[in-house]
This record gives sequence, structure tokens and C-alpha cells, in this order.
Amino acid sequence: MMKKITIDFLDELPRFLAPDPEGNGRLVAMLDTEATGLDASTDELIEIGYVIVRYDSHDTLTEVIAERDYLGEPSEPLPRVIQLVTGLTDADLCGRRIPWDDVARDMEGVDIIVAHNAAFDRGFCEKYHDVFRRMAWADSMSQIDWLELAGVSSRTQEILALRAGEFVYQAHQALDDARALTYLLSRPRADNPSETYFHALMATHRKKTYMVVADGAPFAKKDALKNRKYRWDPVARSWGIMVAGDDAMQAEVEWLTALMYDGYRPIVTEIPITGRFRGQK
Amino acid sequence: MMKKITIDFLDELPRFLAPDPEGNGRLVAMLDTEATGLDASTDELIEIGYVIVRYDSHDTLTEVIAERDYLGEPSEPLPRVIQLVTGLTDADLCGRRIPWDDVARDMEGVDIIVAHNAAFDRGFCEKYHDVFRRMAWADSMSQIDWLELAGVSSRTQEILALRAGEFVYQAHQALDDARALTYLLSRPRADNPSETYFHALMATHRKKTYMVVADGAPFAKKDALKNRKYRWDPVARSWGIMVAGDDAMQAEVEWLTALMYDGYRPIVTEIPITGRFRGQK
Repeated sequence: MMKKITIDFLDELPRFLAPDPEGNGRLVAMLDTEATGLDASTDELIEIGYVIVRYDSHDTLTEVIAERDYLGEPSEPLPRVIQLVTGLTDADLCGRRIPWDDVARDMEGVDIIVAHNAAFDRGFCEKYHDVFRRMAWADSMSQIDWLELAGVSSRTQEILALRAGEFVYQAHQALDDARALTYLLSRPRADNPSETYFHALMATHRKKTYMVVADGAPFAKKDALKNRKYRWDPVARSWGIMVAGDDAMQAEVEWLTALMYDGYRPIVTEIPITGRFRGQK
Repeated sequence: MMKKITIDFLDELPRFLAPDPEGNGRLVAMLDTEATGLDASTDELIEIGYVIVRYDSHDTLTEVIAERDYLGEPSEPLPRVIQLVTGLTDADLCGRRIPWDDVARDMEGVDIIVAHNAAFDRGFCEKYHDVFRRMAWADSMSQIDWLELAGVSSRTQEILALRAGEFVYQAHQALDDARALTYLLSRPRADNPSETYFHALMATHRKKTYMVVADGAPFAKKDALKNRKYRWDPVARSWGIMVAGDDAMQAEVEWLTALMYDGYRPIVTEIPITGRFRGQK
């Protein structure tokens, strides 16, 4: 029958995420945004929330330094679907302005911005302030192998929180989502409890990262590329995939050569740490 | 800080889902499958689970009649990703066969099959037994407006269970998923607690349902159609959308005419109750 279980509900973050913090280290911003739609070229940001967290020389998240949450009024009334998703109304946003210069000052103090689906947040943030173009972004959705590390096949943050983090929270409010991401990344890995998911993320983040482009791929190869999670770049009109590490890059080149023809050479470019998750969806 | 909350964990279904059941009524099968991949044309079913439930003349789910769970050995070793998602191993499946004639007898006794993303399950099931071609299928993912009714923007069953149903369960085992779907659909609607989500599903299911095809739509209209959730039919080489009810059909024809040109006439076909969610992904 139904049984009752007890589960953690993340209300507020504890200040200290690890025992005995060194008290120094670098800072990371765990960031989330809400927008009027999905398309950064036409839609607008209505909320930005972030948690600034210290991490030590072992990539252990140690201490919550600051939390911020800002609302911004869009130029048009909120679509009903966005009201339902975010719980925000036109009245909530009336007269609000996101203080981008304050946000930029916070970002200048951190080494890295982490978001769950960083391409979405980066695409929007870059419209509002140049600081976001110069930053290193990491993506907790794609740069952690959740299936291998936690046995979770979904990459939805709420399901990862529930199944990898063993907690629930109220989703779709920017700061609450950023808090949940912070807590999730501070949790021990299911497959190796001496490490956290943030350790795994940083390990990927520090690897040399490449864009492998299937230059000249014929239309007939489209489904094979799509199934392997290549993305279509409408500007370059080509399929490409981002891979982390020299081994993964070599494996990708081999796979692509087998798909194409003997002697095929894809275009491989290293993506600098500040150039990832830019202009993608 | 973190607080502890108590939440229902769905272990087994209660036999009675509503008080004072009439004791008669029709039967529905809540069904879920696991497969070796996502493509019904090439991948194979490895598990089918279903719950047969009685519903009364008011579309109230009343009594659990039977629960079934069958495994089937595929022709090749399980891909690692499927092992991780389902928790099944080659050893679990060795020598197993899904008894399709028994399954078919069960299906012949029900009026309707409900699945969460029915196109997926129907596509696979039809490969194994003709009974599935003759059945009426309903889709709890697309035929319930979860955002309007429950305020949940995700259509992932696990998130709907958590947020609309207020319970958790162990996902990705076919019978457990079918049980969770049964329980979720038996829960009172957030916006109108005198009705359940099953009532909402059946209301959509009983409406005349149409395929509206954007016949002759030029390539330039592709994004607009895609954003409105039209799907590409690779056989007919056209974009189409399924809509329930005459009002929704009229509204769709108007939207499409505005997108195309004055005097445009889309192809509108009624889809019989046994013809829905066929051959889609």
C-alpha cells in the first residue's frame, strides 16, 4: 500500500556545505534565470537568481557567501504559460529592474558560473551585460554524466534533486532553483560517496574541450548525427558536438570517420574555457 | 535550512481507488513498456507492465482488478544505457518471453489503454500483437493539460507524480510506472478537487479528434509550425497536429490560415478513437 517516507525539503541553504572549511578558496556562482520564452533573440529575462559559494583547493563546496534574486519587468504582459510556470504575475514585475551593474560586480568576483542548461542562461544573460561574455561557464546538465554517476536517466533538475540528491524543493523560482542546484552539487556521488557532483563537474570543466564539426556531412547522415547528440549550427550550416578531453575527442573523430568515409577529416577546434555554451539552445 | 517533510511513497496500489464503488463498470489498462531503445522500427520490447482498473459510469477509477508484469529477452545484449535506466541485466531477461496471447486476452477485456506517451508504447506493442491495432489508446502526457489543471510545466511522469500527485515512486520498472500512472490519474485535480485527472483525460478522449495538416506549407513556415507543436510526417512529407474538439479544430484552422494566406484550406481529417497515437514518436 502507500507508505509515508520522510524526505529533505530544501527551504534555505545551510551556510556551511562541508565540515571544517579551509576558509579560503575561489568563488562560483550557481545561477538560474526565468524568461518570457525560450528564444534569447526575441524573449526577455524577468528574473535572475544566484548563490555565490566558496570552493576549496580540492573543489569541495564549502561556504555560501551570498544569495541574490532580482526581478525585471518585461516590455509586454507575461504570456499565460510563463505565469503558470513561474508563478509570477505582471503585478509582481511592475516597475522592477534587474540591477545589471550590481550583478556584473558580483560576477567579476567569481571564477566560474554554473547553470543547469548553461546555454539557455548564457544566451539570455549576454544580451544584458558584457561581463557574461568574458566568464567561464559550466553546465551541470551536460558536463556531469548523471546516468553513469547517479543512475538517473533524466537530466531535469527536479528529478536529479529527488533521485541523486534525495531532496525536494519548490521549482521554477530562480533563486530556489539556484539553491537547489547548489545543494545537489554538494551531495556525495551515488557511485563514489567520497566525491560530490561538483567534483565531477569541475573535472569535466578543467578538461580540454573541443568542438568536433562533421564538415561536409551529407543530408543522409543527419539522423545518425542527431542520434549521437550532434547539434545543427544554422550559421555555419553544419553539425557539431562538444566533447571534453583528448580521449573523447579522439573517439569522436574515429566514430565520425567511420560514419563518413576512409580518410575523412572532421574540423576539430579547441573551445576556450570562456567560449563554451555560447549561442546554443 | 533543510527541513524534513513526509510524503507518500507508492509501494503497492490500494485495491479500492474510490470510496463506495458501484462494483460494475468498464475496464481500462494503464500500461507501460521498456525497450532496448527509442525506435520501434529497430528496437525491441524487454518489459511490459499494466494495471487493469475498473471505472464507473462517471469515469471514476474504482477498483484495481489485476496487475501484470512480463519480461522478454531481446536478440542482442542490452545496451549499457538501457541497463542503467531500467536496472535490468541480460541475466534478468535470459530465457524470458512475453506471453503475447495472454496479454492480448487481457486487452480484449478492456475498453481503453492508457499510457504516458502512448505513441511510444503503441508503436512497440503493435509490432508484437495485432490486438493493439484495434484498441482505443489514450495518452496521459498530451491529453491532459497539466499546466492548466495542475500548474506543472513538465510532462515527465515522475515530476507530475511529485507535484500534481504529491507522491514519489521508484521509476523505470514497467509495472511500477503503470501503478504510479494509475495512482496519479486517480488523484483529485489541483484546480478542481471534485474531479480527478482521469476525468480530464476521458473528457479529451471522448471528444472528436482531428488531424489538421498544413498541406503545402513552404519550408519558411517550418519554425512557426514546430513552435506550435506540429509534427513532421516523413511519409506524407507534411506537418500536422492532432486537436481534440470542434472548437480547437476551428481555432487551429484559423491560426493556420492566418499563417499561410487568405483562402487557404488545410486538410482536416477526423481520427477514429482507435487510430490515435499511431506511428508517432
